[in-house]
Amino acid sequence: MPPAAESTAPAGALDYLSLPAAACLIARVGVVECLRGVEQAIEADFRRWPEFSKTARLAQPTPDGVIELMPVADARHYAFKYVNGHPRNTRLGLPTVMAFGAIARVDTGAPIFLSELTLSTALRTAATSVMAARLLARPDSRVMALIGNGSQSEFQALGFVGLLGIRSLRLYDVDAAATRKLMANLADVEVELVPCDSVAEAVQGADIVTTLTADKTRATILRGEWLRPGMHINAVGGDCPGKTELDAAILRRARVFVEFEPQTRIEGELQHMAPEFAVTELWRVLAGQAPGRRDAAEITLFDSVGFALEDYSVMRCLQTLGRAHGLLESLALLPALRDPKDLYSLVREAGAGGDGDRT
Amino acid sequence: MPPAAESTAPAGALDYLSLPAAACLIARVGVVECLRGVEQAIEADFRRWPEFSKTARLAQPTPDGVIELMPVADARHYAFKYVNGHPRNTRLGLPTVMAFGAIARVDTGAPIFLSELTLSTALRTAATSVMAARLLARPDSRVMALIGNGSQSEFQALGFVGLLGIRSLRLYDVDAAATRKLMANLADVEVELVPCDSVAEAVQGADIVTTLTADKTRATILRGEWLRPGMHINAVGGDCPGKTELDAAILRRARVFVEFEPQTRIEGELQHMAPEFAVTELWRVLAGQAPGRRDAAEITLFDSVGFALEDYSVMRCLQTLGRAHGLLESLALLPALRDPKDLYSLVREAGAGGDGDRT
Repeated sequence: MPPAAESTAPAGALDYLSLPAAACLIARVGVVECLRGVEQAIEADFRRWPEFSKTARLAQPTPDGVIELMPVADARHYAFKYVNGHPRNTRLGLPTVMAFGAIARVDTGAPIFLSELTLSTALRTAATSVMAARLLARPDSRVMALIGNGSQSEFQALGFVGLLGIRSLRLYDVDAAATRKLMANLADVEVELVPCDSVAEAVQGADIVTTLTADKTRATILRGEWLRPGMHINAVGGDCPGKTELDAAILRRARVFVEFEPQTRIEGELQHMAPEFAVTELWRVLAGQAPGRRDAAEITLFDSVGFALEDYSVMRCLQTLGRAHGLLESLALLPALRDPKDLYSLVREAGAGGDGDRT
Repeated sequence: MPPAAESTAPAGALDYLSLPAAACLIARVGVVECLRGVEQAIEADFRRWPEFSKTARLAQPTPDGVIELMPVADARHYAFKYVNGHPRNTRLGLPTVMAFGAIARVDTGAPIFLSELTLSTALRTAATSVMAARLLARPDSRVMALIGNGSQSEFQALGFVGLLGIRSLRLYDVDAAATRKLMANLADVEVELVPCDSVAEAVQGADIVTTLTADKTRATILRGEWLRPGMHINAVGGDCPGKTELDAAILRRARVFVEFEPQTRIEGELQHMAPEFAVTELWRVLAGQAPGRRDAAEITLFDSVGFALEDYSVMRCLQTLGRAHGLLESLALLPALRDPKDLYSLVREAGAGGDGDRT
């Protein structure tokens, strides 16, 4: 999956991947193969971490959620994502998270790719969790607890089963219908599915605990006394100010890994801890600058909040795959000018013979 | 032109205004009528300034320009614009500025409108200049100098002629071809066009001086000694760090008005001045909290940099007009789910009978 991102759209247009096209693409390629490619792309981009201009996302808190813009850039490309997080949306029949984004050329500022990013966010979040677990979970991990069985859960399950060798999933959600939905969606997958009646039951015997809850509150989904030596915790749900999932005792007992420390301090489980509490950025482990898991007894924690670079990686993957599968459209969002100083020509030519005023 | 912004697109889609559709819309309605509506919308939004959550735009400097995200929100809507500024683009046959943006609902985070914003930016910039001049220029102003005859110049010219009674335009650009292009585009407009050989010549006898240059440098387009009592200066071109157009002496002699002070301090002609240099935000004049022009001799300066709220205003106008003229399309950028917790269903249904992996 070559990570190129140049547009083949005509002048005045950019490549466009709609949501139905992305769904079709993921179905054709397969979720696990998509996750494999996205994980590789994220890993390659994290390895060249210092090349990127990074910023904590720009968040607009709203009464029922948050709306964010997430930009990132290297010397060639600028990318950003629009994304919301509204936990109450499901009561209205809407997804909690909706997203879209774009890649532009840094040299000219021209946008070259516009993409749905709701499905893509699910892919890149799961792929980043897999990448982190590859560095941090015990290699013999076979059992994963999945706490929170909503929209993100299938993608995490397929990633950990298909790419990391998980053979048993212990499932819990406060909404039993969500667990039933997840089990139905995974019915054809070669994995043991164990629905549980509580978080405490779900984490029993788990090598990896993945938390994927959506409440915008300081919840304590996971308690310190449930930790076992050698566990890896993949904490995905706590991802905005005031929204956490873990008992602070867990952070004190675990070695904590993050994507981009300045952002995670604001949004992640790290909100529990003092500013001097030590964490390790994942890219340092990939670059050999810091160790991942050091022994079989260590408790590791990936405090995932989602970083803009992952969106850039997944957009490039899907643009490349979408082009290969003929699923990109072209969107006339930009001006194509014979004289670049004559923007008005667009109006003049559109109005030739029209009924516009004559001033 | 009612400023509503709800989407009529089906579930999973949002309203979309392409660049060709925007050109067609502006041609049909007429540039001056569009500017009239946009000015009214901007004025109405500026009057309720305290209702908006505002932030200086998030700028990514690049070697040849800048790329920016400009968000703004009130209790109902969140809007943002992607925009670049690359002065060297014209040598590559590309416009200096390209933009697009969106409006979303604050209550659910759902995007409801995606729009081209290159033409729209030209409209809202000109409309804001007209609004400022209505408050700040002498009511008997008839002669305007237009320094910089690029993509923005037709829109400024049409606005000032059509909405403010300007009867003579004195034109100058370092590129004489740009001036010829502007004159050709205005050939049918009832206004005297006076091409000049220098800025000094162009500003002679001008009641209003509009500067619209694009160089990303600390240029001195306008010198203090050319100022005359009663002049209004509409300084549009200096709009990013390191990019200014005016002699600092001009700022010292004029009363200076801005859109959003924290942003203009970073990007505008205000870069010349100490942080305590007094300026007035335009909305205060509209709200009756500060005087506009106080007498016929005063020199006034609008240090325009462009603020996100203007993009929100123009997007709502064009969405409303676009719908009325049947020029909105619908873009399938979002998920439409029967079960809002079942994002995976999109992949499952797209893949029914497909060739995806079975994990």
